[in-house]
Amino acid sequence: MKLTLVGAGPGDPDLITLKGVKALQKARVVLYDALIHPALLEHCAESCVKVHVGKRFGKHSCSQDVINFMIVEYAYQYGEVVRLKGGDPYVFGRGYEEVEFAARHGIESEVIPGISSSYAVPALAGIPLTSRGVSESFWVVTGTTKSHQMSGDLALAAQSTATVVVLMGVHKLPEIVEIYSELGKLNQPIAIIQNGSLPNQKMVTGKISNILPLAQISGISSPAIIVIGQAAALPDTAIECVRQVSSKSDLMS
Amino acid sequence: MKLTLVGAGPGDPDLITLKGVKALQKARVVLYDALIHPALLEHCAESCVKVHVGKRFGKHSCSQDVINFMIVEYAYQYGEVVRLKGGDPYVFGRGYEEVEFAARHGIESEVIPGISSSYAVPALAGIPLTSRGVSESFWVVTGTTKSHQMSGDLALAAQSTATVVVLMGVHKLPEIVEIYSELGKLNQPIAIIQNGSLPNQKMVTGKISNILPLAQISGISSPAIIVIGQAAALPDTAIECVRQVSSKSDLMS
Repeated sequence: MKLTLVGAGPGDPDLITLKGVKALQKARVVLYDALIHPALLEHCAESCVKVHVGKRFGKHSCSQDVINFMIVEYAYQYGEVVRLKGGDPYVFGRGYEEVEFAARHGIESEVIPGISSSYAVPALAGIPLTSRGVSESFWVVTGTTKSHQMSGDLALAAQSTATVVVLMGVHKLPEIVEIYSELGKLNQPIAIIQNGSLPNQKMVTGKISNILPLAQISGISSPAIIVIGQAAALPDTAIECVRQVSSKSDLMS
Repeated sequence: MKLTLVGAGPGDPDLITLKGVKALQKARVVLYDALIHPALLEHCAESCVKVHVGKRFGKHSCSQDVINFMIVEYAYQYGEVVRLKGGDPYVFGRGYEEVEFAARHGIESEVIPGISSSYAVPALAGIPLTSRGVSESFWVVTGTTKSHQMSGDLALAAQSTATVVVLMGVHKLPEIVEIYSELGKLNQPIAIIQNGSLPNQKMVTGKISNILPLAQISGISSPAIIVIGQAAALPDTAIECVRQVSSKSDLMS
C-alpha cells in the first residue's frame, strides 16, 4: 500500500511539477485540499475518485485526524492514495504527520515536492528572498503555531540579516510590528502579498512604522504572505528602474 | 524584449513545473547552467538555440558578468531569451542580478519559480523542514557568501527551534560544528545530503559531536546540502517505525 503526497504549488495550476501531473494521471483516489485549483483535478482520469478534504471553510472541513483516517481507509480499499496539498507537503503542510500515521498502519509513502509559496509568491511579486549585497539568507516562520502563539523564533530572526517570511500571519501583524519596533527596526521594509501567483494577486508595501494603517486601508487579508527585510523594498526600486529606462528611451527616440 | 527565468528544480528532470516546460517549448534561445539535466533541453524545439553558460567547471565557465551580457545580446538578437537555472532562480541563484541587468537595458523579465533544493532535497531524503512539535520555522543560508565568510546569522539560528539548511556549505562544516559546539548543542542532529533527488543520492546522518569523522569516512562532497535540527534525526526514526510495523506484521502473519 502506498501514499503519494503531491505538492500543488502556490495557486497557479501551471506551477505543479511534471512529476506531480504524472502522479495525478495514474491516481485511483485523490484527497485534495480546499485551496487546490480545480484545473489540477483535470489531470486525473475520469474514473478517479476525487475527495475534498479541505480545511479552509471551518465547520464543513475535516480535522487532521479525520484526514489521516481517510488516507488509511482509502489506501486499504484501493491499494494507493494520492494526497494533493497546496504549496509543498513538508513546508508547514502537516504532510509529515500524514506520512507518520500511514507508516504506523504499514503504508509506505512517497513525497513529490511542490513549489512552496514561501519564496515563489514573493518572487512572482518581484521580491527575491536572497540577492547579493541585499540578503544572504531567508527565514520562514508560520503565524499559526500549535500553541496559537507567534513563534519565538521571530524575535531571533528579526535580529538577523535574513529576509523573514511569515506564512499565515496577517492576523499577527500587530505582534510582528511590535517585535521589530522593540528592536528599533522601524524603517525595515515590509510587503504583504495576498493571493500570490493568481490573477487577483494584491500587494501592499511599506515599512514597519506605517504598515499597520497601510494594510488596514488596503483591506488586505488571508491567505497572505508577509516579507520583511531590505528585499521587500525591491519591487518599488524595480519600478523606479524601469521608469528610468523608459524615460531614457523617450529621450533617445 | 523579454527575459524569462525558469527554475529547473533540484536535479530530477520531472521536478520542473508545467509552466517551465511550456516556456522551454516556446523558447527560441535557452541559456542553461551546468547542473541542468540534459532531458530538460528535450522540451525545446529543434530550432531552439541552446547555449551552455555553466559556472561549474572552473576555467571553461562564464562569469556572471559574461552571462549578463549574453542575456542582453541574445535578447536584442532574438527578442526573447529563456534562462534555465538549477533550483529556483531567486533562491541563491543570482537571478535577480540578471533581471536587474536586463532591466537596465530595457528588457522586461518574467520569473517562473522552480523547486528549491533547500527544502526538496531534505524532503526526498525523508526530512520535513517543519513538523508540528519538532520545528516551527526553517532558515536557509549559503556557505558561499560574497565575503567568503560563514554568515553571522548562523549563531542566531542555532539558538532557535528553526531547522537550519546550509546550501553549498560542505567545505564550511568545521565552522558550523564550532558554532553549535560553542552553544553546547553537541547532540543536535545533522544530516548531509549529496546529489539530492538523483539516483546517486547519498546521505550521512549524525550529531554535531560526531559528524566531522562521519562525513570524512563517507567521503561525502559537493554539491551537498546540510540540515541541522531535530528534523534531521527523522529519517532514522522513520526507519525504526517501519521496522516496528514490519515486525508486528510478522507476528500477525
